[in-house]
Amino acid sequence: MKELPIHIQLHPESSKTLYEQIYEYIREEIKSGSLMQKEKLPSARFLADYLQVSRTTVDMAYGQLVSEGYLEAKPRRGYFVSTYEELSAINQALGQMPGRQDGVKGMSRRGESGTEAEAGRRGTCPGVQGREPQIRYDFSPNAIDMRYFPYATWKKITRNILVDANSKMFSLGEPQGDPELRMTICRYLHGSRGVNCEPEQIIIGAGNDYLLLLLEKILGRHVCVAMENPTYTRAYRIFRSCAYPVRFIPMDESGMRVDCLRRTDAQVAYVMPSHQYPTGVSMPIGRRMELLKWAAEAEERYLIEDDYDSEFRYKGKPLPSLQASDHSGRVVYIGTFSKAIAPAIRISYMVLPYPLLERYRCECGFYASTVSRIDQTILNEFIQDGYFERYLNKMRKRYREKHELILNALRSFERAFDISGSNAGLHVLLADRQGRSEEELADVAAREGVRVYQMQDFRMEESTDAPAMLILGYGALTGEEIREGISILENVWL
Amino acid sequence: MKELPIHIQLHPESSKTLYEQIYEYIREEIKSGSLMQKEKLPSARFLADYLQVSRTTVDMAYGQLVSEGYLEAKPRRGYFVSTYEELSAINQALGQMPGRQDGVKGMSRRGESGTEAEAGRRGTCPGVQGREPQIRYDFSPNAIDMRYFPYATWKKITRNILVDANSKMFSLGEPQGDPELRMTICRYLHGSRGVNCEPEQIIIGAGNDYLLLLLEKILGRHVCVAMENPTYTRAYRIFRSCAYPVRFIPMDESGMRVDCLRRTDAQVAYVMPSHQYPTGVSMPIGRRMELLKWAAEAEERYLIEDDYDSEFRYKGKPLPSLQASDHSGRVVYIGTFSKAIAPAIRISYMVLPYPLLERYRCECGFYASTVSRIDQTILNEFIQDGYFERYLNKMRKRYREKHELILNALRSFERAFDISGSNAGLHVLLADRQGRSEEELADVAAREGVRVYQMQDFRMEESTDAPAMLILGYGALTGEEIREGISILENVWL
Repeated sequence: MKELPIHIQLHPESSKTLYEQIYEYIREEIKSGSLMQKEKLPSARFLADYLQVSRTTVDMAYGQLVSEGYLEAKPRRGYFVSTYEELSAINQALGQMPGRQDGVKGMSRRGESGTEAEAGRRGTCPGVQGREPQIRYDFSPNAIDMRYFPYATWKKITRNILVDANSKMFSLGEPQGDPELRMTICRYLHGSRGVNCEPEQIIIGAGNDYLLLLLEKILGRHVCVAMENPTYTRAYRIFRSCAYPVRFIPMDESGMRVDCLRRTDAQVAYVMPSHQYPTGVSMPIGRRMELLKWAAEAEERYLIEDDYDSEFRYKGKPLPSLQASDHSGRVVYIGTFSKAIAPAIRISYMVLPYPLLERYRCECGFYASTVSRIDQTILNEFIQDGYFERYLNKMRKRYREKHELILNALRSFERAFDISGSNAGLHVLLADRQGRSEEELADVAAREGVRVYQMQDFRMEESTDAPAMLILGYGALTGEEIREGISILENVWL
Repeated sequence: MKELPIHIQLHPESSKTLYEQIYEYIREEIKSGSLMQKEKLPSARFLADYLQVSRTTVDMAYGQLVSEGYLEAKPRRGYFVSTYEELSAINQALGQMPGRQDGVKGMSRRGESGTEAEAGRRGTCPGVQGREPQIRYDFSPNAIDMRYFPYATWKKITRNILVDANSKMFSLGEPQGDPELRMTICRYLHGSRGVNCEPEQIIIGAGNDYLLLLLEKILGRHVCVAMENPTYTRAYRIFRSCAYPVRFIPMDESGMRVDCLRRTDAQVAYVMPSHQYPTGVSMPIGRRMELLKWAAEAEERYLIEDDYDSEFRYKGKPLPSLQASDHSGRVVYIGTFSKAIAPAIRISYMVLPYPLLERYRCECGFYASTVSRIDQTILNEFIQDGYFERYLNKMRKRYREKHELILNALRSFERAFDISGSNAGLHVLLADRQGRSEEELADVAAREGVRVYQMQDFRMEESTDAPAMLILGYGALTGEEIREGISILENVWL
């Protein structure tokens, strides 16, 4: 028999599935160095034969390892252990078998997803089931509060539009989106975020994920992307699924360090200057200028500004968008209504600078719109008739109340934690001063039914000197739930 | 001054834009061989400086040439003349400056687009304006008749759903689509098309274009695709925008020739076995078996079955789908509601065989759904309550009436044309027996206000021996419009 580089002993009687066992074995072999970087793995078919398991079982284990970055799949060549550079980018936390959070309330991505675990770099392969205690209070940093959504208004607008609807509404609209809605978004972005654009620069699409896929077609295949570290893991996964090499740039209190960015070969930097996720850092004007200067210095450099939650801030006037300061046509501005209105509203928008707009039109302007005209028309009226503004004002007030409530509830925590992130967004950060690990803190909380989030799940490179940092989101919780959850944390952490 | 491989004389006083002049000049240089294959063009920046025009002007000309296949853009390296193999695939008809058909009724893609010219490989860059006579009768093969759409029913369902709606409807659904709708589609496909699948194999997405983008992520980057020739040009453009090499396979009266397919390095074949577009060929069971055998013979071979208009056929019982005969998990089945219901319904579906489903889940299962739950729920009720079936029956009847009407009206044409394509679909084909060119025939018709479509726009390789073939679609025209249009054609063609 051919000499295999791996010698897995499967235990069919184990509580772990065969897939998990294969996955864990190979992961440990890589982490320990027994499997060397660039080493080729046996083909899935061969390994399945050898282990007498189904091909699907091996495919799933390999798929999981690929999605976590341990392996690379090279088409027609097979699976290879990732290179050291890539491996070092994998947080050890990811090494644990992820549990799926099916059915737990409040778990959603930054306003986009209601069904998927946020810790995006954790695996999402089917069949991976954790055995977690029941969570009663989920401090997800992503969930939003839908209790105040003006359902009646939305329904009324829909009814009226359908009453008035001519058959035009049932025909396919323009690939970039309906001109009326683009005009409305253009005005809204100019007024609220200082974005300078014409409606023709706006592309409306069914969600940020789709717009990033479209942007891949516009930017091309061989783009090296810089991201803040820690960052929004879902965007990271999309860039990885585009096979873009990703460079992680450290942050300081002003955001992405442009001096470090300059030492990379990145052409495109993905940033969240208004309110970085998850650190909450707001990038001051000086750093923004540095970033814009970097972009303008070479052809084909662009900044992707993800302004995902610009609507919710409580203290001070927010800076306008980065796009507002861009005079060289280097910023791609992306925003969504999924967070400000409802996750079901599959409408996001992207503002392209002119050079990219030309390329979009030539190379992918033929892609049909992904949003129906009816939905676009409803949204347009919701904004134009002032309901959007009114709803935003109400939600700002509600979220501000919760924000003050959680800060009050956390007052006693100050003797053990540094609390930050108090200007905006829907979460606060707690940095432990007693040398405990994030895992330890999260585990004792989970055992009492409280889920908090670990900063390491958003860090793209291990930093052993970083203090343990917990993320507590409160968007979807009621005041009472916040108080009860925090009171449990008080018992187990203080 | 650096020696340029091109010496364009621009004429600012010309009726042609500078962009068109640059585009046409370079195109002619390539066609004449003055610009050799693989030759590098000057950078857009350099050429813009040299010609004293804006960078955008040059970018647009290059973009147009890339989208038509004359040039290849290599990231960070520049623009190169395509190789001979690629150039030979370019139909000379594409060499003409395309006119945009803005505002002309009835022009839409195979039921998906209402705004874009079908002749997909023609350019769509902005600023290209044809000077066409006014078209009164557009025999588009793609347009559908929306006059009989049950708007009232659709509105009623929407109203009822919104009345019942709980906030769940406003949360994001599962990435693959709502389980109820997937179950309904699964049943419908099984009953009407013999498709064998489980709801878990179905992925719902906002249009075929989006699903093909997702399929790119599943199949990977380095896939060589085979297509029928002639074929659906939009799918071709999407594969090209994925940078997939495309091989064109000749067809006979049974469809794609598998003997020719075997002589290529293609791994994936995109086929329309039920009713090939635009030839109307229906693939008999023998050829289907050959095709499935080809797919099963090597790992990683797949067939993409685009069953775009399976709902509309008039004579005989349609064969079940290709997927129905697939026992090796090699067929990806794609269908859409854009044609059967309305182009505005941005809901298509893809049935993945299990090996690809695993890969989807591991590698792009995190992409958020592009269709709102509200829209999915409306469609689900429309189908479940029997409205869809009733509407289809009505439309089959209407289209059959038109079909008979156009065949009657064309009776006198039989002395000069061979008429075919009479089993299904929404168009007929006229092959000229008098040696006239497609262009000539289309031009005299257009001068009298009738637009007909040329087969050469769908052919991917020049075949000088093919007879002139015109495509006349009648889906969106009334009986009177069909009669009037045909009577004009009678005057100019017979």
